[in-house]
Amino acid sequence: MPKLVDHDARREELGAALWRVVARDGIEAASLRRVAAEAGWSVGSLRHYFATQAQLLTFAMELVSQRVRQRVGALPVVEDGPSAALALACEVLPLDAERRTEAQVWLACTSAALVDPGLRTIHADAHAGLRNLSRRAAGLAGASPARLEAAAERLHALLDGLAVHALLDPELTTPARMRQLVAAQLDEL
Amino acid sequence: MPKLVDHDARREELGAALWRVVARDGIEAASLRRVAAEAGWSVGSLRHYFATQAQLLTFAMELVSQRVRQRVGALPVVEDGPSAALALACEVLPLDAERRTEAQVWLACTSAALVDPGLRTIHADAHAGLRNLSRRAAGLAGASPARLEAAAERLHALLDGLAVHALLDPELTTPARMRQLVAAQLDEL
Repeated sequence: MPKLVDHDARREELGAALWRVVARDGIEAASLRRVAAEAGWSVGSLRHYFATQAQLLTFAMELVSQRVRQRVGALPVVEDGPSAALALACEVLPLDAERRTEAQVWLACTSAALVDPGLRTIHADAHAGLRNLSRRAAGLAGASPARLEAAAERLHALLDGLAVHALLDPELTTPARMRQLVAAQLDEL
Repeated sequence: MPKLVDHDARREELGAALWRVVARDGIEAASLRRVAAEAGWSVGSLRHYFATQAQLLTFAMELVSQRVRQRVGALPVVEDGPSAALALACEVLPLDAERRTEAQVWLACTSAALVDPGLRTIHADAHAGLRNLSRRAAGLAGASPARLEAAAERLHALLDGLAVHALLDPELTTPARMRQLVAAQLDEL
């Protein structure tokens, strides 16, 4: 019997290598060459999976979405209320090293999607996912059905803006400060 | 008398050429080569003013800040109130082609500053300028001194987040919608 390559397992292996590079050295370091070296592959083998830098960034953004979904899925099931809403919103804020790495990938993907149509789909998926999460959080915080959509849009913009501020101005926009500001926004719903 | 080069006039000439390229073709098109061609200069002459792409992006961001300051300075002097606050905040939202171009430059600069320390200073200046504008707008909208800083931070994050959404998702985050959402945020102050 011929030896079969398990492509899913290899993609997962590559995802782990990509994530180690991004977490350690930042998204700008995640070149095809560096990721291949981290995985112990040749660049040629890696290109079989990702032909371009944009495809690698797309894969990184897919990993971010997957990680957020897993954490959100693991949150305790609680009654409605501002604290449940805050816990949900906090899953997409750069409050620790892990979520900071995710936010860096998101910002790189956002900026790249503006100039590279090949990244629009993955960015649109992540954007829609964050909008849904914001809608759920606004609902948990008690927004009435008539006000839900506008509340979700404002919360979503606040979360994205705070992520940018925390990445670029971490001394002022600290994790504690982000929590306070988001809690205040939710309290007004 | 030797012929003197008026460096300020030449920088202004370059700024105009740079802005025409960015407004017409987007910030990603603003390479040294393209800007030199637009200005009718050689790439070598341009390099005398901007040695790198990062320096060109820095100059583009300076032009954005200058344009915003001019528009804010030209706003009518009015009494305090939510409408004056809204008018101020609207000067930094991508509500028309001009401000959309400015927002593109800001997003490119933000994302580049994350990975290129050479862009941190200009980004920090723009960030501080937007924070000041947000503080003034929150004050005009009636935020009490005790709540002013948090209100300014939330407004600033909302404005930046909406700018990102308008650039990437213009069908949903329309100019009219941005105005509504910012007005609602200011009304709660």
